[in-house]
Amino acid sequence: MADVIPIIKGKRVAILVEQEFEDGEVIFLSEKLRASSAAVVFVAPSAPTQYRGKHGHIVTSDVAAGRGAHASTFDAVVIPGGYAADRMRMRHAMVDLVREAVEAGKPVAAICYGPQLLISAKAVRDKMITCWPTIAIDIKNAGGLYMDKPVVEDGNLITSRKSDDLAAFSDAIIRALSRVPNASNYEVSP
Amino acid sequence: MADVIPIIKGKRVAILVEQEFEDGEVIFLSEKLRASSAAVVFVAPSAPTQYRGKHGHIVTSDVAAGRGAHASTFDAVVIPGGYAADRMRMRHAMVDLVREAVEAGKPVAAICYGPQLLISAKAVRDKMITCWPTIAIDIKNAGGLYMDKPVVEDGNLITSRKSDDLAAFSDAIIRALSRVPNASNYEVSP
Repeated sequence: MADVIPIIKGKRVAILVEQEFEDGEVIFLSEKLRASSAAVVFVAPSAPTQYRGKHGHIVTSDVAAGRGAHASTFDAVVIPGGYAADRMRMRHAMVDLVREAVEAGKPVAAICYGPQLLISAKAVRDKMITCWPTIAIDIKNAGGLYMDKPVVEDGNLITSRKSDDLAAFSDAIIRALSRVPNASNYEVSP
Repeated sequence: MADVIPIIKGKRVAILVEQEFEDGEVIFLSEKLRASSAAVVFVAPSAPTQYRGKHGHIVTSDVAAGRGAHASTFDAVVIPGGYAADRMRMRHAMVDLVREAVEAGKPVAAICYGPQLLISAKAVRDKMITCWPTIAIDIKNAGGLYMDKPVVEDGNLITSRKSDDLAAFSDAIIRALSRVPNASNYEVSP
């Protein structure tokens, strides 16, 4: 994977967090992206704020959605699972960030319950999507084409089912980031 | 309310439980129904099994869905909130129990996230429904007519938004039970 590392160097990736995120997913994804030289930014409804995962892992958010964090300031948006995704649906700025990133054609990746936020952002119609099985019916009702596969890519959407799929999921995110033109030079107000 | 008590005496009400149920809702509803002389039966994917609420309250299930528990053995089905509802969607026997009760015209009541199970049972199309706000979009995508009211009744469906609505919710359940003909005399195999 050595050839991938320089390609996504300097890319800015928003990982969305809220209370009750899936600890293992946030840890794996942030470490994997950083190991690939991407800049990981934790985006949440408020910042700097401590958010606690289902199993107790603490993440301190870097920027608040709608304040420092806008879709234009990231190369990709990643939505981890856990019941955090349900909580994020309640926050307009989080939903707006996802919708704007999808509309801008940036890679938007969601795993487990993360695709709930894609439903709220009205981003799944006619798209092939996978997700945690309990919400498959919600994806279908939203007009999405549910598939039971470790990772599903359709346009700029990347989705996975569960933590077991993390390796394939993160590889797909890194591949997508490597296709994003370089030289992004964002100014971010905190 | 003294006139209500004899009317639902002997009625059998299934309260559906799974891990991470909303403690306050299960406690309030079971106490209120028992105070009205209804027989409360805790139905879960397995029984007898201990299920733990979000805040640590333990409920031991009485009968397992699909084994002792069928829609025909209850006068009403109540689906409390919490992430238990999400877990129940994964259990075919729980979804089947709800669908059969809805189809049999029995009162089926769901609060908070409970209506997620109504989506899985394909019971919401063209029905007026309320629910926890994060899943309102899922109700609409399933063809339901979402309303933001403490309690919404449409045919045999009774729905509420959150724990604050429990008084109105339980009153509506008891009113609906009082309209169910008496002399139910069920045999239940454990």
